[in-house]
Amino acid sequence: MTLKDNLHAFFYPDAVAVIGASSTPGKVGHTVLTNMLSAGYTGKLLPVNPKGGEIEGLAVTADVADLPRGLDLAVIAVPPRHVVESVRKLGIIGAKSAIVITAGFKEAGKEGHDLEEELKGLCAEYGISLLGPNCLGMINGAAGVNASFAAGQPGRGSIAFFSQSGALCVAILDWALGANIGFSKFVSLGNKAVLDEADMLEYLNRDEDTKVILGYIENVEHGEAFLKEARRTSLNKPVIMIKAGTTAAGAKAASSHTGAIAGSDQSYTAAFHQSGVIRVGDVATLFNLAQAFSSQPLPKGPNLAVVTNAGGPGILAADAADRSKLSMAELSPRTIEKLQEFLPSYAAFYNPVDIVADADAKRYRQTLDVIGEDPMVHAILVLLTPTASVEIEKAAEAVIRTARKWAKPVFACFMGKTKVAGARKMLMDAGVPCYAFPEPAVHSIETMYQYYLWKHRPEPVYAEITRDMDAVRKVIDEHLRRRQAEVVEFEAQQILRAYGLPTPRTKLARTSDEAVAAAGEIGYPVVLKIASPNISHKTDVGGVAVNLVNEREVMETFKEITARAQRMRRDAYIAGCLVQEMAPPGVREVIIGFKRDEQFGPMLMFGLGGVYVEIMKDISFKLAPLSRQDAFEIVREIKSYMLLKGLKGEKPVNFAALEEIIMVMSRLALDLPEVLEAEFNPILVNNERAMVADVRMTLSV
Amino acid sequence: MTLKDNLHAFFYPDAVAVIGASSTPGKVGHTVLTNMLSAGYTGKLLPVNPKGGEIEGLAVTADVADLPRGLDLAVIAVPPRHVVESVRKLGIIGAKSAIVITAGFKEAGKEGHDLEEELKGLCAEYGISLLGPNCLGMINGAAGVNASFAAGQPGRGSIAFFSQSGALCVAILDWALGANIGFSKFVSLGNKAVLDEADMLEYLNRDEDTKVILGYIENVEHGEAFLKEARRTSLNKPVIMIKAGTTAAGAKAASSHTGAIAGSDQSYTAAFHQSGVIRVGDVATLFNLAQAFSSQPLPKGPNLAVVTNAGGPGILAADAADRSKLSMAELSPRTIEKLQEFLPSYAAFYNPVDIVADADAKRYRQTLDVIGEDPMVHAILVLLTPTASVEIEKAAEAVIRTARKWAKPVFACFMGKTKVAGARKMLMDAGVPCYAFPEPAVHSIETMYQYYLWKHRPEPVYAEITRDMDAVRKVIDEHLRRRQAEVVEFEAQQILRAYGLPTPRTKLARTSDEAVAAAGEIGYPVVLKIASPNISHKTDVGGVAVNLVNEREVMETFKEITARAQRMRRDAYIAGCLVQEMAPPGVREVIIGFKRDEQFGPMLMFGLGGVYVEIMKDISFKLAPLSRQDAFEIVREIKSYMLLKGLKGEKPVNFAALEEIIMVMSRLALDLPEVLEAEFNPILVNNERAMVADVRMTLSV
Repeated sequence: MTLKDNLHAFFYPDAVAVIGASSTPGKVGHTVLTNMLSAGYTGKLLPVNPKGGEIEGLAVTADVADLPRGLDLAVIAVPPRHVVESVRKLGIIGAKSAIVITAGFKEAGKEGHDLEEELKGLCAEYGISLLGPNCLGMINGAAGVNASFAAGQPGRGSIAFFSQSGALCVAILDWALGANIGFSKFVSLGNKAVLDEADMLEYLNRDEDTKVILGYIENVEHGEAFLKEARRTSLNKPVIMIKAGTTAAGAKAASSHTGAIAGSDQSYTAAFHQSGVIRVGDVATLFNLAQAFSSQPLPKGPNLAVVTNAGGPGILAADAADRSKLSMAELSPRTIEKLQEFLPSYAAFYNPVDIVADADAKRYRQTLDVIGEDPMVHAILVLLTPTASVEIEKAAEAVIRTARKWAKPVFACFMGKTKVAGARKMLMDAGVPCYAFPEPAVHSIETMYQYYLWKHRPEPVYAEITRDMDAVRKVIDEHLRRRQAEVVEFEAQQILRAYGLPTPRTKLARTSDEAVAAAGEIGYPVVLKIASPNISHKTDVGGVAVNLVNEREVMETFKEITARAQRMRRDAYIAGCLVQEMAPPGVREVIIGFKRDEQFGPMLMFGLGGVYVEIMKDISFKLAPLSRQDAFEIVREIKSYMLLKGLKGEKPVNFAALEEIIMVMSRLALDLPEVLEAEFNPILVNNERAMVADVRMTLSV
Repeated sequence: MTLKDNLHAFFYPDAVAVIGASSTPGKVGHTVLTNMLSAGYTGKLLPVNPKGGEIEGLAVTADVADLPRGLDLAVIAVPPRHVVESVRKLGIIGAKSAIVITAGFKEAGKEGHDLEEELKGLCAEYGISLLGPNCLGMINGAAGVNASFAAGQPGRGSIAFFSQSGALCVAILDWALGANIGFSKFVSLGNKAVLDEADMLEYLNRDEDTKVILGYIENVEHGEAFLKEARRTSLNKPVIMIKAGTTAAGAKAASSHTGAIAGSDQSYTAAFHQSGVIRVGDVATLFNLAQAFSSQPLPKGPNLAVVTNAGGPGILAADAADRSKLSMAELSPRTIEKLQEFLPSYAAFYNPVDIVADADAKRYRQTLDVIGEDPMVHAILVLLTPTASVEIEKAAEAVIRTARKWAKPVFACFMGKTKVAGARKMLMDAGVPCYAFPEPAVHSIETMYQYYLWKHRPEPVYAEITRDMDAVRKVIDEHLRRRQAEVVEFEAQQILRAYGLPTPRTKLARTSDEAVAAAGEIGYPVVLKIASPNISHKTDVGGVAVNLVNEREVMETFKEITARAQRMRRDAYIAGCLVQEMAPPGVREVIIGFKRDEQFGPMLMFGLGGVYVEIMKDISFKLAPLSRQDAFEIVREIKSYMLLKGLKGEKPVNFAALEEIIMVMSRLALDLPEVLEAEFNPILVNNERAMVADVRMTLSV
C-alpha cells in the first residue's frame, strides 16, 4: 500500500468510521457524524462507541477491532490515551488513513509529546496516513466528505486550502461562506505527526478538482521533501502560502503553538522563491490571489493597459503598476488611431486610457474591443467610478465580454459600494475578479505575471563539478581524527585545489630565507600571512601584510609577523608564513559563504566584502544546489551589483568565473556534510579572472 | 473680508444661489438644487436662470446681478465662457464664495487655461473664495448643505475629506453610504484655481465637527502655505493623505489630469514627514485609519498586548507587530499571576495571551480586565475566531467594556464573516474598530502611535547661525554681474568662511615656489588642487593630488597639474593651484547638498561619499529649514550611519560638528535664493572635527 493510494482513500473513502461518535449534540464526536451526513456522504458511515446502540439512525460498532478490514478512513475524537489504542487497533485491521481531532499531544508538554511519538511509530509500522493530531479535520465536498467538527458546509470550488492552524480554518470557513468562496479540498494539518504540507502538495498537484493551492504554515516539517514537491507542483499549478512566525515575536508565539519550531525567515524566503511558491503576508491577499488565479489566464508579458472613466483612480493604478514588476503598456499607433475614431477629443489616448466621466457602457465596450486586440497589451484593468452617465451593469457586461473574447487576464475595479454591488456580483460570478480599489488588482496581475515567468523559465542546468574527493576526504578526515573544528588556510587550500578552484599561488615558508625564495618564484609584489593551525583570525594578531615589493620587505616582515603572533598567542604552533601572490589591479572583493539551515540544508550567501555585507546587509541568499541560473541570479540580486558590472569606464568583472566558484561552493556544501559553515572571503575578481584568496571552514567534530 | 470669514460663509451659507439651475432632471443644475433641498437646507435657496420662472417651487432669479448683495455662496453650473461672466457679476454684488462645477478650464488646453487665469484674476480682485472649477462640489451635512451634483446624501460624522479627483469623490461617497461612514465636510477641490488643500487644512483645523482630516491630492499648489498649515493642523488633529502620481507612470497620467504637475516624490515624502502628515498609499488604508483615529484614543507607548482564542492568528498579529514600530508588551509578573488564577493551564500567559479555543465570553472579559490594568500595556488587540464555545456577541461586549474602561486604544479582529457579522457591527457601532484580519489592525495602531510621537515631540529648535552677509553677497553679486553660474572652490570658500564653516587651511599659489612656501606654512602633508574659474570638475583634468609629503613633490606636482590642465582646457584661465591641509586620519567622507524643489523649496540631501550615495542610493532628505532635531535625524536615517557611529573599536565621528554644518547649509539655502543647488563634497569628519573640504554651487544667472 503506497502513500499515494492511501491519500486517495483518505480524500475519497468508501467507508468512514467515527471513533468516539456521540449522540450528544455539541460533542465533537456528534458534530463529525452529522457533518458527514449533511455533506451527503453516500459511503459506509460507521460510528464507534463502546456503548454500542444506534446514533443518528446508524448502527454503532462497539470496538475499533470490529471495524471492516482495510477501512479507508477513521476519524478519531477520543481522549489522547485512547487515541493511541485506537490507532493500534486500526493498524491491526489494516486501516489506510485516520484523522486525529483530539488535542493534548506534542503541543501539550512532555507526556503529550511522548504519546505523539508513539502514534508516529504505529503509523510507520502499519502504514497509516494520519492527519493531525490536534486538528479540525478534512473536507472534500466532491466526495460528500466533511470529516471535521467545523460548523457549516463550505461550497465546492477549485481552491484547495491546508492550514497548520485549526483556528484559521474555522475563521476562513466562516469567511468563505459569507464571501461565497468554494473549496476543492480543505485540510487542517494540526501537529503534522504524519501527513504534512509536502504530502498535501504531492496529492493536490495530481488532484483534478484543484486549480490553486493555498497553505498556511508555521514551519516546514521536512525541508527536502517540501522543496521537491513544491517545485514540482508549482510548475503545474500555483501554490500560494503564508508562512507565519516570520519575525522574532511571531516565532516566539509560534514556538508554543502546535509545538512548531520556526526556521530562519531568510531560508524560507529562499526556499519559497527557489521552489516557485508564491509567498504572501496576509490572509486577504491569499484569497485575492486565489480568486485571480482560479478565474483568469496568466498574462504572457508585463504590459498592463488601464481603461478608466476617471483620472484619479487611473493615476492610482499607474502608480501601483510602476511600483510593480509590470509596465504600463505602450499602445500601438494603430490602437490609438482606432480609439480616436470614437472617443471624444478630451479623452486621454495614452495609457491609462481615460474615456472620461461622461462615458457610457457602449464607450467601455468599444474601447475594450480595441485595447483587447492590441498585441502589446498583456493584461487589462478596467476601472469604473459610478458617475451619472455610466450604465454600471452594462459596463460590467462589456468587461465580461472582453474577458471571454481574449486570452488575456481582465480585471475590474468598480469603485464604490452600493451602486456597484450588482455589477460587482455579475463580474465575480462571471470569473472576472473585481476589486474596490485599484492597488490590489494591480498586485494580483503582477503576481500572476511573475508566476508566468516561473512556469516558463528554462529547465535548471547544473554545472558538472569535477573534483578529487580522495584529496578532499584526506584533509577532512584528518581534521575529524584530530577533532579540530577549524580548517585553516593552507589545508583549506588543498580542498579548494581538489575542487579545481583558482587560488593565489601560495607557498609555505618556514624561515625568512624560504620566504624570500618563495617570493622570488611567485613574483613581486607578494602577501605574507601567518601560518598556524591555532590561529584562524589572522588579522587579530596582525598576521597579514600586503604589497611587499622586495626581498628586504619580505625578510623583515616575516620576522615581525611570526614574532608578534608568537608573542600574542604563546601556545600557538607557528608553522611560518604563507607567501602569496598579490591581487591583480582593478579587483573587487566578494564573499561567498554557506551555513546549514535546519530545515532546508546548505544556504549560500553572496555579497561584496567589507561594509557592504556587514553594514549595508547587501546580501543575497540561495539554497543549494544552485543551478547556473541561480548562480547568475545570486550575484545580480545585490544592490552593489553595479560595482561588479563596473562604474563608468570600468570593465565588468568576469562573471562566468565568479559564478563557477559559487557553483563549486554549492557542490562542496552538498559533498561534505561535516562542514557546518564555510566562507570564501575574499574572492578577488577582476575583468579577467576570479580567485579565492582566503577561506575558512568549520567542521562538526 | 478675510479668507477665514469667507470660508465660514462657504461652509455655513445663509443664502445659496445656484447659477444654471434647471428644471430638467439629470442636468447638473437640477441635481445641485434637489441635493440642497434634500439635505434639508433651511437658508435662502436662489436658483438663477435667464429664463426666470420657478423651479422646484423656488422663484428663479434671471440675472446674477440681481442676487442679494453680500451673497454667501454661489454654485455655478453654466458653460465655461458664462462662468467668467457670472463670477464677475458675483464680484460686483460682493459675493463671498463660489463653487464652479463646470469643467473645460486648465485641464482642457490653452483656451481653458486662459479662462481659468481670468477666473483667478477676478477672485483676487473681488475677494471671492472659489472652489473648483471642474469639481463635484461641497457637502456639509451639519449646515444642511449639499452643494454638489453627487448622487446620494452621505451621513454625518467626524471625518473631513477633500479630494483633487472628483471621480474619487463619487466612488468614495458611494462606498461610504454602503459602509455607513459619515463626514463632517466633504470637498471636491477640482482645479484648485483659488481654494486649495492648504486653505482646507487651515479651516478644518478650527472646525469643531472634524476629528480627522483625509485628503487625496495629485500635487500641492503652494508648498510653503501647505507646510505651514499641515504642521499646525497635524499638531491638533490627524491629517491623513494620499499623494497620487508618485511614480513615473502615475505622474504621466497625472500631468494631463486636472492639469497637475506632480513634484518629485522624495520632496513630498519629506514634506509630509516634516509636517506630520500621515501618508498612505491606498484608499482602503485611508479609511481604516480614519475610523481608528476618530474612535479610539492614541496609544501612549509602543507596547501592544494581543489576546486571542487561537494560536495562528496570534502569530500573524505578533509578526505584524514585529515588522512595525510597535513592540509586543512584556506583561508584568503581577498580570501573569492574575491570569493564572483563572486561565486554564494550557493557555499561553505571555503575549500573545492565548486563552485557547474553548474560551467563552467570560474568559475574554476576565482576561481583558487584567490586561487593561497592566501599565506596561499601551494598546490592546483582541482576536477572536468563531469556535463552537465562544459566545461571539458577549465577547464583543467584553471588548467594548474594556475599551470604555481604560484610556487605551482597543482594537478587535473578529475573523470570519457570517458568524461574526453581528458582533462586528456591535463593535463598530460602539467605536471599536473591528477588522477581518490582524495585519491592518496592527498597522492602524502603529500609525496612531507614530502620530502620538509626532504630537508629543519637542518644539523644533533652530540654531542661530551668525554669518557675514556682506562678504557673502559680494561673492554672489560678483558672479551674477559676470553671469558666471559656477562658484568654484576658492571663491566658494570665502562664502563658507563668511558662514563660519570649518574649511581646510588653503592658500592660492600662483607659482610652484609659492606652492612650496604655502605648504611650509600649512604643514606637510598637503593637497594640491587646480585653481581655475573655468574648471569645476577638477578630477576630470587630473587636477587633484593628495598626500604630498615634501617640497620636491609639491614643486613637481604643481608643474604637472597646471601644465596638464592647460593642455586639456586650452581656453581655461589657470590661476595656479590651491595648497590645502590634508585630511586628518580616521576620517569619513560625507556629502551634504541641496537643490530647490518646485513646490517645497530647498531640499537637503545627506549621505556618505562615493558608492554609498551613487550606487547604494543611501541618502536621506529633509526640507529647509532644518531644526536641530532634523539635523540629528538626517545623519541617522541613512543605513551607513553605522560607519559614522564607528565600527568595533572605532570612535564615533563628531556628530555635533557635522550637524552644525548641515544646519548652516540649510540657512545658506534660505539666505541665497540665487543658489540653485550646492554641494559640500566631501565633508571630512572624524572623532574630533568636521570640515568642508570642497564645495560647488550653481547660481541662477
